Amino acid sequence: METSSILTRPGLPELTAARARIERYAHRTPVLTSAHFDHLTGAELFFKCENFQKVGAFKFRGACNAVFSLSPQELERGVVAHSSGNHAQALALAARLRGTRATIVMPENATAIKVAAVRDYGAEVVLCQPTQESREGETARIVETTRACLIHPFNDSRIVAGQSTAAQELLEDVTDLEVILAPVGGGGLLSGCALAAHHYSPATRVVGTEPAAADDAARSLAAGRILPAVPPATIADGLLTSLGELTFAIIRDHVERIVTVDEAAIVEAMRAVWERMKILIEPSSAVPVAALLNGNLEVRGQRVGVILSGGNVDLDRLPWQT
Amino acid sequence: METSSILTRPGLPELTAARARIERYAHRTPVLTSAHFDHLTGAELFFKCENFQKVGAFKFRGACNAVFSLSPQELERGVVAHSSGNHAQALALAARLRGTRATIVMPENATAIKVAAVRDYGAEVVLCQPTQESREGETARIVETTRACLIHPFNDSRIVAGQSTAAQELLEDVTDLEVILAPVGGGGLLSGCALAAHHYSPATRVVGTEPAAADDAARSLAAGRILPAVPPATIADGLLTSLGELTFAIIRDHVERIVTVDEAAIVEAMRAVWERMKILIEPSSAVPVAALLNGNLEVRGQRVGVILSGGNVDLDRLPWQT
Repeated sequence: METSSILTRPGLPELTAARARIERYAHRTPVLTSAHFDHLTGAELFFKCENFQKVGAFKFRGACNAVFSLSPQELERGVVAHSSGNHAQALALAARLRGTRATIVMPENATAIKVAAVRDYGAEVVLCQPTQESREGETARIVETTRACLIHPFNDSRIVAGQSTAAQELLEDVTDLEVILAPVGGGGLLSGCALAAHHYSPATRVVGTEPAAADDAARSLAAGRILPAVPPATIADGLLTSLGELTFAIIRDHVERIVTVDEAAIVEAMRAVWERMKILIEPSSAVPVAALLNGNLEVRGQRVGVILSGGNVDLDRLPWQT
Repeated sequence: METSSILTRPGLPELTAARARIERYAHRTPVLTSAHFDHLTGAELFFKCENFQKVGAFKFRGACNAVFSLSPQELERGVVAHSSGNHAQALALAARLRGTRATIVMPENATAIKVAAVRDYGAEVVLCQPTQESREGETARIVETTRACLIHPFNDSRIVAGQSTAAQELLEDVTDLEVILAPVGGGGLLSGCALAAHHYSPATRVVGTEPAAADDAARSLAAGRILPAVPPATIADGLLTSLGELTFAIIRDHVERIVTVDEAAIVEAMRAVWERMKILIEPSSAVPVAALLNGNLEVRGQRVGVILSGGNVDLDRLPWQT
């Protein structure tokens, strides 16, 4: 696939194709409700549980759609990405399911457990210096020598179409949603939600939620151009990345607004979901919940979808234990 | 209701009535599966998620059935129990839903959060000395002065019938289960499971699981009489109680065996469920999982139901953090 088409906004056919493509491999995750949080917010909340997705995060959807879109020629050369997060495991698993090779470039200071998880999914891990230059340089070197297909974690049409399937399923399971909330980091999930609502449920608004300590998406939308998030310092470690040109354009056109929340509210919301709903969510997933609980967004009387993006946490170090 | 009938083993009509009685009030909890744990055990596991039940534990089923069984005369006098655990909240909520008063006797060293939770459900809390004598004495005094109806946490036919509904639902949702595993403390859940299997799926065996550090149920079955669990010292704080005469008799007649597991295995199983299934379970719920993961029970090739009894944990002190 040419770079130009990778950066083309996916349309209805691509979203529908993604849904069919990943159906056999991704979990159709449940939608949970909570009388407690409904009572607190005065709204009807519907939580789409991507923490129960394969590899523990929505990222599997995009990686799966991207890998299963590859041509036989591309599959022979394998896939490559640099990631120390959920995309790494997602791509490794998708490649294994498709029977192709994955090479993941990870910083040498990544935790041993993350490296082991990626290797467990059958990927080759190449360690590099923990700098953006080293990661990109090492990745480019691998692409050049192996001609493997680079799968960007969010700035890729196939990834965005894949992530859109979470909102597609939610809109199918829950009718008449007035708004969908999702966290925004690189913007793959949020732009996917926005396109899904645009094509399948145009009356449903989509709102992004972001840590105030990494509010590059909110500032970028205000400025009309992509601003980097430096230096982001948030507990929501899935949301450190800045937007890409593809996700920025989609979010600009189809997302109503971005709401920011402070760190204490994220920790409190995360703990509240654990205690009340008895499910593990990672800090990034708590960001939209924090926006609801803190009243940063008025939703009283509305039907609200919330994407709980993932559940991968370090159980030895919980954010409320300092 | 006379004491004699409270201690009469519930039959098929009582089980069926309990199911209908609590249907509007209790959650029909989901049954989750896990490719990971299936792979580890070589079995097909079906986890009945009572951690998602109201008040965070199966206890609501029994309390609800008991309270909604009361006559109008009994309801006027209210209900009473002594409990510092899940039964306290369960009875408080059931009473509120039925529009009657609940008085809960709790030891004065119960954590403030537990006392507050019971009061939040609208019950009156009476604090007592943290001894069995004081708890029972205070409870008896309240029964005498108010003529409130004492609802024992497990040694009560209505409670056992109520707890049986978890297994009733599981047997309806999952066909051809070869065995159901449940933890055993006072035996309300285990005896309920045993009766449900006996009446609705006689080919399904029922196995109890118990901490080796509180193995009074296993020893009682071996001895043919109820032996107290003194001094029990297990992390599975829901399983400290000894059997009652009703639950002992049912378990003796209908439970195949009791498997014991050590403390380290319980902690490991609890953490594994959190990490892999992204759900919170309390240590008591991890006991049957530990029995499966440690190979204390051979289930290879079988379809196995596992009752995850509850999800109430202190998030400030997790058992793997010492």
